Amino acid sequence: MSTLRFTTDTTVDGVREREFALDDVPGLLFSPASGAGGPLVLLGHGGGTHKRWPRFVGRAHRLVLDGGFTVAALDAPGHGDRPRTPTDEREVAALRRVQAAGEPIGPVVERYNLDIARRSVPEWRAALDALAALPEIGPDGPVGWFGTNMATAIGIPLLAAEPRITAAVLGQFWPGPLEETARRVTVPVEFVLQWDDEFISRESGLALFDALGSTEKSLHANAGRHMELPRFEADSAVRFFVRHLSARSTG
Amino acid sequence: MSTLRFTTDTTVDGVREREFALDDVPGLLFSPASGAGGPLVLLGHGGGTHKRWPRFVGRAHRLVLDGGFTVAALDAPGHGDRPRTPTDEREVAALRRVQAAGEPIGPVVERYNLDIARRSVPEWRAALDALAALPEIGPDGPVGWFGTNMATAIGIPLLAAEPRITAAVLGQFWPGPLEETARRVTVPVEFVLQWDDEFISRESGLALFDALGSTEKSLHANAGRHMELPRFEADSAVRFFVRHLSARSTG
Repeated sequence: MSTLRFTTDTTVDGVREREFALDDVPGLLFSPASGAGGPLVLLGHGGGTHKRWPRFVGRAHRLVLDGGFTVAALDAPGHGDRPRTPTDEREVAALRRVQAAGEPIGPVVERYNLDIARRSVPEWRAALDALAALPEIGPDGPVGWFGTNMATAIGIPLLAAEPRITAAVLGQFWPGPLEETARRVTVPVEFVLQWDDEFISRESGLALFDALGSTEKSLHANAGRHMELPRFEADSAVRFFVRHLSARSTG
Repeated sequence: MSTLRFTTDTTVDGVREREFALDDVPGLLFSPASGAGGPLVLLGHGGGTHKRWPRFVGRAHRLVLDGGFTVAALDAPGHGDRPRTPTDEREVAALRRVQAAGEPIGPVVERYNLDIARRSVPEWRAALDALAALPEIGPDGPVGWFGTNMATAIGIPLLAAEPRITAAVLGQFWPGPLEETARRVTVPVEFVLQWDDEFISRESGLALFDALGSTEKSLHANAGRHMELPRFEADSAVRFFVRHLSARSTG
Protein backbone atom coordinates (compact mmCIF):
# COMPACT_ATOMS: atom_id res chain seq x y z
CA MET A 1 0.00 0.00 0.00
CA SER A 2 1.12 3.57 -0.72
CA THR A 3 2.36 5.58 2.24
CA LEU A 4 0.58 8.80 3.21
CA ARG A 5 2.85 11.16 5.08
CA PHE A 6 1.62 14.54 6.37
CA THR A 7 4.12 17.35 5.82
CA THR A 8 2.35 20.55 7.01
CA ASP A 9 -0.54 21.37 9.34
CA THR A 10 -2.10 24.84 9.29
CA THR A 11 -5.52 26.38 9.91
CA VAL A 12 -7.04 28.95 7.55
CA ASP A 13 -10.45 30.57 8.18
CA GLY A 14 -11.75 27.69 10.26
CA VAL A 15 -10.38 25.00 7.94
CA ARG A 16 -7.49 22.72 8.88
CA GLU A 17 -5.25 22.20 5.85
CA ARG A 18 -2.68 19.41 5.92
CA GLU A 19 -0.37 18.84 2.98
CA PHE A 20 0.68 15.26 2.46
CA ALA A 21 2.74 13.09 0.18
CA LEU A 22 1.23 9.86 -1.07
CA ASP A 23 4.50 8.23 -2.12
CA ASP A 24 5.56 10.94 -4.61
CA VAL A 25 2.09 12.46 -5.25
CA PRO A 26 1.51 15.73 -3.35
CA GLY A 27 -1.92 16.19 -1.81
CA LEU A 28 -3.90 18.34 0.58
CA LEU A 29 -6.46 17.32 3.20
CA PHE A 30 -9.06 19.86 4.33
CA SER A 31 -11.15 19.30 7.49
CA PRO A 32 -13.05 21.39 10.04
CA ALA A 33 -10.68 23.15 12.45
CA SER A 34 -13.27 22.50 15.13
CA GLY A 35 -12.74 18.72 15.16
CA ALA A 36 -13.54 15.56 13.28
CA GLY A 37 -14.73 15.98 9.72
CA GLY A 38 -17.74 14.27 8.17
CA PRO A 39 -17.78 12.05 5.08
CA LEU A 40 -14.90 12.21 2.62
CA VAL A 41 -15.18 14.12 -0.65
CA LEU A 42 -12.41 13.68 -3.24
CA LEU A 43 -11.91 16.98 -5.07
CA GLY A 44 -10.22 16.94 -8.48
CA HIS A 45 -8.86 20.15 -10.02
CA GLY A 46 -9.16 21.25 -13.65
CA GLY A 47 -6.57 21.23 -16.42
CA GLY A 48 -3.74 23.74 -16.01
CA THR A 49 -4.49 24.37 -12.32
CA HIS A 50 -3.50 22.61 -9.09
CA LYS A 51 -4.49 21.86 -5.49
CA ARG A 52 -3.69 25.42 -4.31
CA TRP A 53 -5.66 27.23 -7.06
CA PRO A 54 -7.77 29.89 -5.28
CA ARG A 55 -11.18 28.95 -6.70
CA PHE A 56 -10.38 25.30 -6.07
CA VAL A 57 -9.43 25.96 -2.43
CA GLY A 58 -12.64 28.00 -2.18
CA ARG A 59 -14.68 24.95 -3.19
CA ALA A 60 -12.86 22.83 -0.61
CA HIS A 61 -13.62 25.40 2.09
CA ARG A 62 -17.33 25.48 1.17
CA LEU A 63 -17.46 21.67 1.47
CA VAL A 64 -15.80 21.79 4.90
CA LEU A 65 -17.56 24.84 6.34
CA ASP A 66 -21.06 24.39 4.88
CA GLY A 67 -21.21 20.59 4.69
CA GLY A 68 -18.83 19.46 7.43
CA PHE A 69 -16.98 17.22 4.97
CA THR A 70 -13.38 16.07 4.94
CA VAL A 71 -11.92 16.93 1.54
CA ALA A 72 -8.90 15.36 -0.15
CA ALA A 73 -7.12 16.84 -3.18
CA LEU A 74 -4.17 15.57 -5.24
CA ASP A 75 -2.07 17.40 -7.78
CA ALA A 76 -2.84 15.68 -11.09
CA PRO A 77 0.04 14.19 -13.11
CA GLY A 78 2.04 16.98 -14.76
CA HIS A 79 0.29 19.63 -12.64
CA GLY A 80 1.08 21.73 -9.55
CA ASP A 81 4.18 20.56 -7.71
CA ARG A 82 4.68 17.53 -9.97
CA PRO A 83 7.25 17.13 -12.75
CA ARG A 84 6.15 17.06 -16.38
CA THR A 85 6.87 13.97 -18.43
CA PRO A 86 7.80 14.27 -22.11
CA THR A 87 4.13 13.57 -22.90
CA ASP A 88 3.06 16.46 -20.67
CA GLU A 89 5.57 18.80 -22.33
CA ARG A 90 4.46 17.75 -25.80
CA GLU A 91 0.74 18.11 -25.07
CA VAL A 92 1.10 21.46 -23.30
CA ALA A 93 3.07 22.73 -26.31
CA ALA A 94 0.36 21.39 -28.65
CA LEU A 95 -2.29 23.21 -26.61
CA ARG A 96 -0.35 26.49 -26.73
CA ARG A 97 -0.02 26.09 -30.51
CA VAL A 98 -3.74 25.63 -31.17
CA GLN A 99 -4.58 28.46 -28.76
CA ALA A 100 -2.13 30.78 -30.53
CA ALA A 101 -3.54 29.77 -33.92
CA GLY A 102 -7.11 30.34 -32.73
CA GLU A 103 -7.97 26.72 -33.52
CA PRO A 104 -10.35 24.55 -31.46
CA ILE A 105 -8.67 23.33 -28.28
CA GLY A 106 -11.09 20.42 -27.84
CA PRO A 107 -9.15 17.70 -29.68
CA VAL A 108 -5.91 18.43 -27.78
CA VAL A 109 -7.54 18.86 -24.36
CA GLU A 110 -9.61 15.72 -24.78
CA ARG A 111 -6.62 13.59 -25.84
CA TYR A 112 -4.30 15.00 -23.16
CA ASN A 113 -6.81 14.82 -20.31
CA LEU A 114 -7.70 11.22 -21.09
CA ASP A 115 -3.98 10.42 -20.91
CA ILE A 116 -3.76 12.18 -17.54
CA ALA A 117 -6.82 10.24 -16.40
CA ARG A 118 -5.11 6.91 -17.19
CA ARG A 119 -2.24 7.94 -14.92
CA SER A 120 -4.42 9.59 -12.28
CA VAL A 121 -7.08 6.94 -11.59
CA PRO A 122 -4.63 4.50 -9.88
CA GLU A 123 -3.31 7.38 -7.76
CA TRP A 124 -6.79 8.29 -6.54
CA ARG A 125 -7.54 4.64 -5.73
CA ALA A 126 -4.28 4.44 -3.75
CA ALA A 127 -5.19 7.69 -1.99
CA LEU A 128 -8.56 6.24 -1.05
CA ASP A 129 -6.83 3.16 0.43
CA ALA A 130 -4.45 5.35 2.43
CA LEU A 131 -7.15 7.79 3.59
CA ALA A 132 -9.41 4.92 4.67
CA ALA A 133 -6.54 3.68 6.84
CA LEU A 134 -6.45 6.95 8.80
CA PRO A 135 -8.35 6.53 12.08
CA GLU A 136 -10.14 9.87 11.57
CA ILE A 137 -11.61 8.72 8.23
CA GLY A 138 -11.87 4.93 8.32
CA PRO A 139 -13.04 2.47 5.68
CA ASP A 140 -16.81 2.54 6.21
CA GLY A 141 -18.08 6.00 5.31
CA PRO A 142 -19.64 7.05 2.01
CA VAL A 143 -17.28 8.90 -0.36
CA GLY A 144 -17.99 11.59 -2.95
CA TRP A 145 -16.17 12.73 -6.10
CA PHE A 146 -16.31 16.41 -7.09
CA GLY A 147 -14.56 17.36 -10.29
CA THR A 148 -15.49 19.16 -13.50
CA ASN A 149 -13.48 19.71 -16.70
CA MET A 150 -10.30 17.52 -16.56
CA ALA A 151 -11.54 16.11 -13.26
CA THR A 152 -14.54 14.68 -15.12
CA ALA A 153 -12.20 12.88 -17.54
CA ILE A 154 -10.59 11.40 -14.41
CA GLY A 155 -13.81 11.00 -12.44
CA ILE A 156 -15.78 8.93 -14.94
CA PRO A 157 -13.26 6.05 -15.21
CA LEU A 158 -12.61 6.35 -11.46
CA LEU A 159 -16.32 6.02 -10.68
CA ALA A 160 -16.64 3.09 -13.09
CA ALA A 161 -13.79 1.28 -11.32
CA GLU A 162 -14.26 2.29 -7.69
CA PRO A 163 -17.34 1.08 -5.77
CA ARG A 164 -16.40 3.06 -2.65
CA ILE A 165 -17.46 6.35 -4.32
CA THR A 166 -21.22 6.70 -3.93
CA ALA A 167 -22.07 10.16 -5.36
CA ALA A 168 -20.40 12.56 -7.81
CA VAL A 169 -20.50 16.07 -9.21
CA LEU A 170 -19.18 16.12 -12.78
CA GLY A 171 -19.45 18.14 -15.98
CA GLN A 172 -17.95 20.32 -18.70
CA PHE A 173 -16.20 17.69 -20.78
CA TRP A 174 -16.55 16.05 -24.19
CA PRO A 175 -18.12 12.58 -24.54
CA GLY A 176 -15.69 10.81 -26.94
CA PRO A 177 -14.39 7.58 -25.45
CA LEU A 178 -15.81 8.60 -22.03
CA GLU A 179 -19.33 7.99 -23.33
CA GLU A 180 -18.93 4.21 -23.11
CA THR A 181 -17.31 4.39 -19.65
CA ALA A 182 -20.06 6.71 -18.45
CA ARG A 183 -22.65 3.96 -19.00
CA ARG A 184 -20.97 2.04 -16.17
CA VAL A 185 -21.40 4.93 -13.72
CA THR A 186 -24.48 4.19 -11.61
CA VAL A 187 -24.19 6.43 -8.54
CA PRO A 188 -26.21 9.66 -8.19
CA VAL A 189 -24.64 12.47 -10.24
CA GLU A 190 -25.07 16.24 -10.44
CA PHE A 191 -23.70 17.34 -13.82
CA VAL A 192 -22.93 20.93 -14.83
CA LEU A 193 -22.58 22.33 -18.32
CA GLN A 194 -22.50 25.80 -19.78
CA TRP A 195 -25.28 26.46 -22.30
CA ASP A 196 -23.08 28.77 -24.40
CA ASP A 197 -19.77 26.93 -23.98
CA GLU A 198 -17.40 28.04 -26.73
CA PHE A 199 -15.32 24.84 -26.47
CA ILE A 200 -17.79 22.05 -25.76
CA SER A 201 -20.87 22.01 -27.99
CA ARG A 202 -24.28 21.77 -26.38
CA GLU A 203 -24.86 18.43 -28.09
CA SER A 204 -21.56 17.07 -26.71
CA GLY A 205 -22.29 18.17 -23.17
CA LEU A 206 -25.82 16.75 -23.24
CA ALA A 207 -24.55 13.48 -24.77
CA LEU A 208 -22.15 12.89 -21.89
CA PHE A 209 -24.89 13.58 -19.33
CA ASP A 210 -27.24 11.29 -21.22
CA ALA A 211 -24.65 8.49 -21.32
CA LEU A 212 -24.34 8.29 -17.52
CA GLY A 213 -25.88 5.01 -16.35
CA SER A 214 -27.17 6.57 -13.11
CA THR A 215 -30.90 6.41 -12.42
CA GLU A 216 -30.54 9.49 -10.21
CA LYS A 217 -28.90 12.26 -12.19
CA SER A 218 -29.46 16.01 -12.46
CA LEU A 219 -28.21 18.31 -15.19
CA HIS A 220 -27.53 21.94 -14.29
CA ALA A 221 -27.08 23.90 -17.52
CA ASN A 222 -26.42 27.59 -17.02
CA ALA A 223 -26.44 30.35 -19.61
CA GLY A 224 -22.90 31.56 -20.20
CA ARG A 225 -19.53 30.65 -21.62
CA HIS A 226 -17.11 27.94 -20.51
CA MET A 227 -15.44 29.89 -17.70
CA GLU A 228 -18.67 31.49 -16.47
CA LEU A 229 -19.96 28.60 -14.35
CA PRO A 230 -21.96 30.43 -11.65
CA ARG A 231 -20.64 30.35 -8.12
CA PHE A 232 -23.94 29.07 -6.79
CA GLU A 233 -23.15 25.72 -8.42
CA ALA A 234 -20.47 25.17 -5.74
CA ASP A 235 -23.16 25.68 -3.09
CA SER A 236 -25.45 23.32 -4.98
CA ALA A 237 -22.70 20.69 -5.01
CA VAL A 238 -22.34 20.96 -1.23
CA ARG A 239 -26.09 20.38 -0.82
CA PHE A 240 -25.96 17.46 -3.26
CA PHE A 241 -23.27 15.79 -1.14
CA VAL A 242 -25.18 16.53 2.07
CA ARG A 243 -28.23 14.78 0.55
CA HIS A 244 -26.28 11.76 -0.61
CA LEU A 245 -23.46 11.36 1.92
CA SER A 246 -24.75 12.91 5.15
CA ALA A 247 -28.51 12.49 5.11
CA ARG A 248 -29.29 9.91 2.49
CA SER A 249 -33.00 9.75 3.26
CA THR A 250 -33.87 13.36 2.54
CA GLY A 251 -33.16 13.56 -1.23
CA MET B 1 -59.15 48.26 -9.78
CA SER B 2 -60.27 44.82 -8.66
CA THR B 3 -61.26 44.44 -5.02
CA LEU B 4 -59.35 42.04 -2.80
CA ARG B 5 -61.43 40.88 0.15
CA PHE B 6 -60.05 38.48 2.78
CA THR B 7 -62.53 35.78 3.80
CA THR B 8 -60.63 33.49 6.21
CA ASP B 9 -57.55 33.81 8.45
CA THR B 10 -55.92 30.70 9.92
CA THR B 11 -52.43 29.59 10.93
CA VAL B 12 -51.05 26.17 9.96
CA ASP B 13 -47.57 24.97 11.03
CA GLY B 14 -46.17 28.48 11.39
CA VAL B 15 -47.77 29.79 8.20
CA ARG B 16 -50.62 32.29 8.17
CA GLU B 17 -53.09 31.37 5.43
CA ARG B 18 -55.69 33.89 4.35
CA GLU B 19 -58.24 33.05 1.68
CA PHE B 20 -59.38 35.97 -0.39
CA ALA B 21 -61.66 36.85 -3.28
CA LEU B 22 -60.29 39.08 -6.01
CA ASP B 23 -63.65 40.08 -7.45
CA ASP B 24 -64.83 36.54 -8.29
CA VAL B 25 -61.41 34.85 -8.38
CA PRO B 26 -60.62 32.86 -5.23
CA GLY B 27 -57.08 33.11 -3.90
CA LEU B 28 -54.89 32.30 -0.94
CA LEU B 29 -52.17 34.39 0.70
CA PHE B 30 -49.43 32.63 2.71
CA SER B 31 -47.15 34.58 5.06
CA PRO B 32 -45.03 33.91 8.15
CA ALA B 33 -47.18 33.55 11.27
CA SER B 34 -44.41 35.34 13.12
CA GLY B 35 -45.00 38.67 11.42
CA ALA B 36 -44.41 40.56 8.22
CA GLY B 37 -43.45 38.52 5.20
CA GLY B 38 -40.61 39.24 2.82
CA PRO B 39 -40.84 39.74 -0.96
CA LEU B 40 -43.89 38.48 -2.83
CA VAL B 41 -43.81 35.25 -4.83
CA LEU B 42 -46.76 34.46 -7.11
CA LEU B 43 -47.33 30.71 -7.14
CA GLY B 44 -49.26 29.15 -10.02
CA HIS B 45 -50.68 25.63 -9.77
CA GLY B 46 -50.60 22.94 -12.44
CA GLY B 47 -53.39 21.70 -14.70
CA GLY B 48 -56.15 19.74 -12.95
CA THR B 49 -55.14 20.90 -9.48
CA HIS B 50 -55.92 24.00 -7.39
CA LYS B 51 -54.67 26.33 -4.65
CA ARG B 52 -55.31 23.76 -1.87
CA TRP B 53 -53.54 20.84 -3.58
CA PRO B 54 -51.24 19.29 -0.92
CA ARG B 55 -47.97 19.40 -2.87
CA PHE B 56 -48.78 22.93 -3.96
CA VAL B 57 -49.44 24.07 -0.40
CA GLY B 58 -46.19 22.33 0.56
CA ARG B 59 -44.28 24.52 -1.92
CA ALA B 60 -45.95 27.63 -0.52
CA HIS B 61 -44.95 26.62 3.01
CA ARG B 62 -41.31 26.05 1.97
CA LEU B 63 -41.23 29.55 0.43
CA VAL B 64 -42.64 31.08 3.62
CA LEU B 65 -40.72 29.05 6.19
CA ASP B 66 -37.35 28.69 4.44
CA GLY B 67 -37.28 31.95 2.47
CA GLY B 68 -39.48 34.26 4.52
CA PHE B 69 -41.54 35.12 1.44
CA THR B 70 -45.16 36.19 1.13
CA VAL B 71 -46.86 33.85 -1.34
CA ALA B 72 -50.02 34.50 -3.35
CA ALA B 73 -51.98 31.80 -5.18
CA LEU B 74 -55.09 32.00 -7.38
CA ASP B 75 -57.34 29.23 -8.60
CA ALA B 76 -56.85 29.17 -12.37
CA PRO B 77 -59.91 29.58 -14.63
CA GLY B 78 -61.95 26.38 -14.61
CA HIS B 79 -60.01 25.01 -11.62
CA GLY B 80 -60.53 24.61 -7.87
CA ASP B 81 -63.50 26.59 -6.57
CA ARG B 82 -64.23 28.18 -9.95
CA PRO B 83 -67.00 27.29 -12.40
CA ARG B 84 -66.16 25.62 -15.69
CA THR B 85 -67.10 27.38 -18.89
CA PRO B 86 -68.31 25.39 -21.92
CA THR B 87 -64.71 25.58 -23.22
CA ASP B 88 -63.43 24.06 -19.98
CA GLU B 89 -65.99 21.26 -20.15
CA ARG B 90 -65.18 20.53 -23.77
CA GLU B 91 -61.41 20.49 -23.23
CA VAL B 92 -61.58 18.38 -20.07
CA ALA B 93 -63.72 15.89 -21.97
CA ALA B 94 -61.22 15.91 -24.85
CA LEU B 95 -58.40 15.23 -22.40
CA ARG B 96 -60.29 12.31 -20.83
CA ARG B 97 -60.89 10.89 -24.33
CA VAL B 98 -57.24 10.92 -25.39
CA GLN B 99 -56.17 9.53 -22.01
CA ALA B 100 -58.72 6.70 -22.28
CA ALA B 101 -57.57 5.97 -25.84
CA GLY B 102 -53.91 5.97 -24.80
CA GLU B 103 -53.18 8.78 -27.25
CA PRO B 104 -50.68 11.62 -26.64
CA ILE B 105 -52.14 14.22 -24.28
CA GLY B 106 -49.74 16.96 -25.45
CA PRO B 107 -51.88 18.53 -28.20
CA VAL B 108 -54.97 18.83 -25.96
CA VAL B 109 -53.08 20.03 -22.86
CA GLU B 110 -51.11 22.56 -24.85
CA ARG B 111 -54.19 24.01 -26.58
CA TYR B 112 -56.28 24.06 -23.39
CA ASN B 113 -53.58 25.52 -21.16
CA LEU B 114 -52.81 28.30 -23.61
CA ASP B 115 -56.52 29.16 -23.55
CA ILE B 116 -56.47 29.20 -19.75
CA ALA B 117 -53.37 31.41 -19.88
CA ARG B 118 -55.20 33.99 -22.02
CA ARG B 119 -57.88 34.19 -19.33
CA SER B 120 -55.48 33.96 -16.40
CA VAL B 121 -52.82 36.58 -17.24
CA PRO B 122 -55.16 39.58 -16.70
CA GLU B 123 -56.29 38.05 -13.39
CA TRP B 124 -52.71 37.77 -12.13
CA ARG B 125 -51.98 41.35 -13.20
CA ALA B 126 -55.09 42.51 -11.32
CA ALA B 127 -53.99 40.47 -8.30
CA LEU B 128 -50.59 42.14 -8.42
CA ASP B 129 -52.27 45.57 -8.42
CA ALA B 130 -54.46 44.62 -5.47
CA LEU B 131 -51.63 42.99 -3.49
CA ALA B 132 -49.35 45.98 -4.08
CA ALA B 133 -52.08 48.15 -2.54
CA LEU B 134 -51.96 46.18 0.73
CA PRO B 135 -49.84 48.07 3.29
CA GLU B 136 -48.03 44.85 4.29
CA ILE B 137 -46.82 44.26 0.70
CA GLY B 138 -46.61 47.63 -1.02
CA PRO B 139 -45.70 48.54 -4.59
CA ASP B 140 -41.90 48.67 -4.36
CA GLY B 141 -40.63 45.17 -3.60
CA PRO B 142 -39.31 42.66 -6.13
CA VAL B 143 -41.79 39.96 -7.18
CA GLY B 144 -41.21 36.35 -8.25
CA TRP B 145 -43.24 33.89 -10.36
CA PHE B 146 -43.10 30.18 -9.50
CA GLY B 147 -45.06 27.86 -11.73
CA THR B 148 -44.34 24.74 -13.77
CA ASN B 149 -46.57 22.80 -16.18
CA MET B 150 -49.78 24.84 -16.85
CA ALA B 151 -48.30 27.63 -14.71
CA THR B 152 -45.49 27.94 -17.24
CA ALA B 153 -48.03 28.43 -20.03
CA ILE B 154 -49.43 31.24 -17.86
CA GLY B 155 -46.09 32.46 -16.56
CA ILE B 156 -44.35 33.09 -19.88
CA PRO B 157 -46.93 35.53 -21.29
CA LEU B 158 -47.33 37.06 -17.81
CA LEU B 159 -43.56 37.66 -17.56
CA ALA B 160 -43.47 39.09 -21.07
CA ALA B 161 -46.23 41.58 -20.14
CA GLU B 162 -45.47 42.38 -16.52
CA PRO B 163 -42.29 44.29 -15.62
CA ARG B 164 -42.95 44.03 -11.89
CA ILE B 165 -41.95 40.33 -11.90
CA THR B 166 -38.15 40.13 -11.67
CA ALA B 167 -37.35 36.40 -11.34
CA ALA B 168 -39.14 33.16 -12.23
CA VAL B 169 -39.08 29.40 -11.83
CA LEU B 170 -40.65 27.69 -14.84
CA GLY B 171 -40.59 24.41 -16.73
CA GLN B 172 -42.24 21.23 -17.97
CA PHE B 173 -44.19 22.60 -20.91
CA TRP B 174 -44.12 22.43 -24.71
CA PRO B 175 -42.67 25.29 -26.77
CA GLY B 176 -45.28 25.76 -29.55
CA PRO B 177 -46.54 29.35 -29.64
CA LEU B 178 -44.85 30.05 -26.28
CA GLU B 179 -41.45 29.91 -27.96
CA GLU B 180 -41.90 33.36 -29.52
CA THR B 181 -43.26 34.85 -26.29
CA ALA B 182 -40.38 33.32 -24.33
CA ARG B 183 -37.90 35.43 -26.29
CA ARG B 184 -39.40 38.50 -24.58
CA VAL B 185 -38.73 37.08 -21.10
CA THR B 186 -35.52 38.67 -19.83
CA VAL B 187 -35.54 38.15 -16.05
CA PRO B 188 -33.43 35.43 -14.37
CA VAL B 189 -35.10 32.02 -14.73
CA GLU B 190 -34.62 28.60 -13.17
CA PHE B 191 -36.21 26.05 -15.52
CA VAL B 192 -36.98 22.42 -14.66
CA LEU B 193 -37.57 19.55 -17.04
CA GLN B 194 -37.68 15.80 -16.68
CA TRP B 195 -35.08 13.99 -18.80
CA ASP B 196 -37.38 11.01 -19.38
CA ASP B 197 -40.69 12.88 -19.63
CA GLU B 198 -43.23 10.65 -21.35
CA PHE B 199 -45.36 13.63 -22.48
CA ILE B 200 -42.88 16.39 -23.35
CA SER B 201 -39.99 15.31 -25.57
CA ARG B 202 -36.48 16.21 -24.51
CA GLU B 203 -36.09 18.35 -27.63
CA SER B 204 -39.30 20.26 -26.82
CA GLY B 205 -38.28 20.93 -23.24
CA LEU B 206 -34.80 22.10 -24.23
CA ALA B 207 -36.24 24.28 -27.02
CA LEU B 208 -38.44 26.21 -24.59
CA PHE B 209 -35.51 26.75 -22.21
CA ASP B 210 -33.34 27.84 -25.13
CA ALA B 211 -35.97 30.31 -26.34
CA LEU B 212 -36.01 32.29 -23.09
CA GLY B 213 -34.46 35.70 -23.69
CA SER B 214 -32.91 35.82 -20.21
CA THR B 215 -29.14 36.22 -19.97
CA GLU B 216 -29.28 34.56 -16.55
CA LYS B 217 -31.00 31.19 -16.86
CA SER B 218 -30.38 27.76 -15.36
CA LEU B 219 -31.79 24.47 -16.58
CA HIS B 220 -32.33 21.70 -14.04
CA ALA B 221 -32.98 18.47 -15.93
CA ASN B 222 -33.54 15.45 -13.70
CA ALA B 223 -33.65 11.80 -14.68
CA GLY B 224 -37.20 10.52 -14.36
CA ARG B 225 -40.68 10.73 -15.80
CA HIS B 226 -43.07 13.67 -15.91
CA MET B 227 -44.50 13.29 -12.41
CA GLU B 228 -41.15 12.42 -10.81
CA LEU B 229 -39.77 15.94 -10.40
CA PRO B 230 -37.54 15.57 -7.31
CA ARG B 231 -38.62 17.32 -4.15
CA PHE B 232 -35.24 19.02 -3.82
CA GLU B 233 -36.22 21.22 -6.78
CA ALA B 234 -38.69 23.01 -4.49
CA ASP B 235 -35.80 23.77 -2.12
CA SER B 236 -33.69 24.90 -5.05
CA ALA B 237 -36.50 27.25 -6.12
CA VAL B 238 -36.56 28.81 -2.64
CA ARG B 239 -32.81 29.45 -2.83
CA PHE B 240 -33.19 30.88 -6.34
CA PHE B 241 -35.74 33.40 -5.06
CA VAL B 242 -33.58 34.22 -2.04
CA ARG B 243 -30.68 35.00 -4.43
CA HIS B 244 -32.78 37.15 -6.73
CA LEU B 245 -35.42 38.72 -4.49
CA SER B 246 -33.88 38.86 -1.02
CA ALA B 247 -30.14 39.16 -1.51
CA ARG B 248 -29.60 40.19 -5.09
CA SER B 249 -25.85 40.65 -4.77
CA THR B 250 -24.90 37.09 -3.80
CA GLY B 251 -25.93 35.14 -6.93
